[in-house]
Amino acid sequence: MTSRRPARARVPVLRVGGRGPARDEVAVEEPLEVRLGARSLLVTMRTPGRDLDLVRGLLFTEGLVEAPDGVAAVAHCADVPREARGNVVTVSLRRGARLRPEGALRVGLVSSACGVCGKATLAEVARQAPPVEPGPVVTRAVLSALPAALHLGQDVFRRTGGLHAAALFDVRGRRLALAEDVGRHNAVDKVIGEALRFGRVPLRAALLVVSGRAGFEIVQKARRAGIPIVCAVSAPSSLAVKLAKDGRQTLVGFLREGRFNVYCGAERIVRSEGK
Amino acid sequence: MTSRRPARARVPVLRVGGRGPARDEVAVEEPLEVRLGARSLLVTMRTPGRDLDLVRGLLFTEGLVEAPDGVAAVAHCADVPREARGNVVTVSLRRGARLRPEGALRVGLVSSACGVCGKATLAEVARQAPPVEPGPVVTRAVLSALPAALHLGQDVFRRTGGLHAAALFDVRGRRLALAEDVGRHNAVDKVIGEALRFGRVPLRAALLVVSGRAGFEIVQKARRAGIPIVCAVSAPSSLAVKLAKDGRQTLVGFLREGRFNVYCGAERIVRSEGK
Repeated sequence: MTSRRPARARVPVLRVGGRGPARDEVAVEEPLEVRLGARSLLVTMRTPGRDLDLVRGLLFTEGLVEAPDGVAAVAHCADVPREARGNVVTVSLRRGARLRPEGALRVGLVSSACGVCGKATLAEVARQAPPVEPGPVVTRAVLSALPAALHLGQDVFRRTGGLHAAALFDVRGRRLALAEDVGRHNAVDKVIGEALRFGRVPLRAALLVVSGRAGFEIVQKARRAGIPIVCAVSAPSSLAVKLAKDGRQTLVGFLREGRFNVYCGAERIVRSEGK
Repeated sequence: MTSRRPARARVPVLRVGGRGPARDEVAVEEPLEVRLGARSLLVTMRTPGRDLDLVRGLLFTEGLVEAPDGVAAVAHCADVPREARGNVVTVSLRRGARLRPEGALRVGLVSSACGVCGKATLAEVARQAPPVEPGPVVTRAVLSALPAALHLGQDVFRRTGGLHAAALFDVRGRRLALAEDVGRHNAVDKVIGEALRFGRVPLRAALLVVSGRAGFEIVQKARRAGIPIVCAVSAPSSLAVKLAKDGRQTLVGFLREGRFNVYCGAERIVRSEGK
């Protein structure tokens, strides 16, 4: 059952000091409930679209499901009230796969297990996700072209101005996956979820590019998926830099207008193909 | 005990295609643990600074504490390991005030009480926060000047490019409070927390202005604090528009370069002082 809900909605608008139609397209933000069988597991706000990939990605990147192939199936529930149709999904796990709600890093703010200094947080991530493997390398030219390639795929953003995007690329700059969402972390979960669905995690030769900033959670999710190179169009946070360094990832920030900053892992970035 | 941790950190950086020093300032992102007495209540990522206002605001806007004066005191804990110093705060409640973790709307993603259609979510907010009062009015000129006034106060953003900001203004455009954080919702909690500390909630005559987008949670927090006018420099989400309309708030988006869009509550915006 598909039960697709729209990612954009038209709302009336009064434009002051500008011109344009009296209706505006806004990005849709709605709650999604995730059930394990019949039991409600979590609710998260998201932009509809790619819900099943989102859930697959979220459960894995947050450590609720340990193995990349831990989720057997995700589907929209049919037995929900009409107005919630498309906003409830149910997950089934592979035989032997366990759900570890206590392993969740970020899902559920309420947690006494969570560390409260940078050090403890890094240790907790390390417990769930080992540092990534060495390699591959990417050229400066490929990196510089990524923001334009990301923007090309931001269909809903172009109409609403209200969405974040995340995309996976290979080191030649070919786009593997792209997703949009009101939450940057959701967009990341959607593309990682798609890779999980195709059995491509760990993503040892992939680049993750996000619109906007790179905080802790973006780098953490990338590390769980084995992604060696993380690029943000805007600034990284201090903990993102620490975490990337600790995970031997390459972290690139302010990737725009042909320029970028490398915060760690510069050995993966070369001047040209031949090095 | 103050235990202030810095909001900015210097990290080494390799600049490609641009010039600048070999070190870059990034916005700090660190976990903050909130305790009720000795019991760990929640952990949230935030940029250090205004921690006590953040906690006061967060507990109130998320409905964990019902009354605006429910929190008696917030203080940094001294009895924590050295590396966590400044990242743990303890809260004491007023006599008679109760903590309602089950009342939390967003804190803790894992919740089966949470609605999964827009309607149920709106109903849940309405249960916790009645619609705001009618009035006041604000002129177009005052509104148009707010982004510049917000930007003036974004000290850490100017140095790092990596922070969101939220500010409270009165209808004459005078700034009442401003805060920065890697999380937009945290910045909102900080300014509302400051208002709570001064006993100024409900903020019946205030405007809330946020950098970036206005999602559901921004409008919900404003409504809990009784704020009638919410302005975002960028786009609102569909649920933000629905929630603002339902709460009889005024929602302004794309407030930049002398222009803006009004999504609801246009009766609070007038051409000039005399109307």
